[in-house]
Amino acid sequence: MKKFMNDPRNVLAESLRGFAAVHSDLVVVDFEKRFVRRKSLKQGKVALVSGGGAGHEPLHLGFVGEGMLDAACIGQIFTSPTPDQIVAAARAVDTGSGIVFIIKNYEGDRMNFQLARDMCGLDIHTVVVADDVATANSAMGIGGRGVAGTVVMHKILGAAAEEGLGVQELQALAQRLCSSMRSMGAALASGTVPEVGRPTFVLPENEIELGVGLHGEAGRQRVQWLGAAELAGKMVETIGADLPRRGDALVLVNGFGSTPLIELYLMYDAFAAELLRLGIRPVRRLVGSFATSLDMAGCSLTVALLEDDLFRLWDSPAHTATMRW
Amino acid sequence: MKKFMNDPRNVLAESLRGFAAVHSDLVVVDFEKRFVRRKSLKQGKVALVSGGGAGHEPLHLGFVGEGMLDAACIGQIFTSPTPDQIVAAARAVDTGSGIVFIIKNYEGDRMNFQLARDMCGLDIHTVVVADDVATANSAMGIGGRGVAGTVVMHKILGAAAEEGLGVQELQALAQRLCSSMRSMGAALASGTVPEVGRPTFVLPENEIELGVGLHGEAGRQRVQWLGAAELAGKMVETIGADLPRRGDALVLVNGFGSTPLIELYLMYDAFAAELLRLGIRPVRRLVGSFATSLDMAGCSLTVALLEDDLFRLWDSPAHTATMRW
Repeated sequence: MKKFMNDPRNVLAESLRGFAAVHSDLVVVDFEKRFVRRKSLKQGKVALVSGGGAGHEPLHLGFVGEGMLDAACIGQIFTSPTPDQIVAAARAVDTGSGIVFIIKNYEGDRMNFQLARDMCGLDIHTVVVADDVATANSAMGIGGRGVAGTVVMHKILGAAAEEGLGVQELQALAQRLCSSMRSMGAALASGTVPEVGRPTFVLPENEIELGVGLHGEAGRQRVQWLGAAELAGKMVETIGADLPRRGDALVLVNGFGSTPLIELYLMYDAFAAELLRLGIRPVRRLVGSFATSLDMAGCSLTVALLEDDLFRLWDSPAHTATMRW
Repeated sequence: MKKFMNDPRNVLAESLRGFAAVHSDLVVVDFEKRFVRRKSLKQGKVALVSGGGAGHEPLHLGFVGEGMLDAACIGQIFTSPTPDQIVAAARAVDTGSGIVFIIKNYEGDRMNFQLARDMCGLDIHTVVVADDVATANSAMGIGGRGVAGTVVMHKILGAAAEEGLGVQELQALAQRLCSSMRSMGAALASGTVPEVGRPTFVLPENEIELGVGLHGEAGRQRVQWLGAAELAGKMVETIGADLPRRGDALVLVNGFGSTPLIELYLMYDAFAAELLRLGIRPVRRLVGSFATSLDMAGCSLTVALLEDDLFRLWDSPAHTATMRW
């Protein structure tokens, strides 16, 4: 394992220090409780708090700011933040208008955010993102994992909160988004957790892990290497089978950390062709590495079938470390 | 080699098709002559044309748009665009107010852009970016290669052109920027050219290529793996020795394609500490993968000591596929 680091145990702390310095115009970092909060809070607005294990950067800290999250809690690498971190973040951004926790669907995250809610004594509601079709209907019974669709949730709910919507309305919006958003990933090679020092999984040179999770969890199946068109066909077919309808879509092609942009744009081209064949029209597009798995090589496709009001929220201004428009 | 692609020979064409679809609001792509141009040209403005081999995405095509480039020509992977491509791009964006070619300092690029200028019959001036200290004073006699500082040049010259500066003033600005901007890279692992199918170079598990170029060219020396702080110390020392002064700086930490953001922010933290020790204060910061080398693992540091007018140009609005503020 070769990485840019000093002591492997300090990767997160030192990276966070860099992040705080680079984006000091937008955010404030609490290094003790490890959360990032929006620098200027907006009074009277529902506060959105999310978070999860580190190693998925820019998720979640890159999405803290105007029009998106009010705070993001950062756990150890691939480990849920603890309830006391979440409580501290919630208190730091509460303006008395209610709080919504945006939680990725993992057992640890759900438990810790729920515990934090109970401990907090504030008016807190929750939204769970579970967009991964690879596990959605599996025998494991956990439902879909929360993957790159979380970025879409941050953006759309963030815009709605910025406009002054209340907690009930935000929850209803989130439900609508969840019902029409699906993701699926494929890995070419594992990432490596610094403190572990060896790849999370080993994939033979000629195989692809189809349906891989954001922590390198095994997916649906290992397949022989496929050309981009054929791979896109399989992924779009799986996503399409789980979507409730066809129509205009927001399409996110997300890199897992070590896949270069030239390949991500190529995959967009392949996905778009397959989506059109299925009657799904990409009318909003985002390509880049937004929800990563350290240095895993791979990408995911997220398709969200939106109605006009949700497209409008997607298009609304945002100003965070990673997203600005 | 495992990549997201179909036929290796079509990687560039298919990726470019994806790029064109994703950013159709900002740019128009000429697929035959392989250049990307700004969708709405601004009359009376000096046109900025750059380009180079593919494989460095988002350089250059991601920087075409308002406040940056008018056109970017895209050669085959790691190969200069041909003069006829450059001529076509220049003609497509000429509004009669002069053209500036921004050229990275490589023999092939210099030759082809010069040939294009001679063939074009338009009022064309050139700016050469040669920010790489690794080769700046080497016996090879080529001067510094053009590396990630090219992004800074695109931004600052782009803002100045947008404000209506003429070709002479733009050239003078470029000269000022070149005189106070230096870069240096370090690789942990080689990238792989799709049509070649094997890594460009082989680096033992415990070594770093110090001073590596954007195509994986050998740098100054191979060293045993170093911790981030020590590596940053070496790189900052080399850059600092070649800079004409100390003071307020724009600092760009650039990933080479397969280095995740968590490591880049960690390196920012390490670089900033070393820069401060030298009397160089980072007052503008940019961290991400902007000038890449396919899937090379590594990063570079660019330091530009700017005066107030150049900081102001850096801060001016831009709206391209990759940069927006």
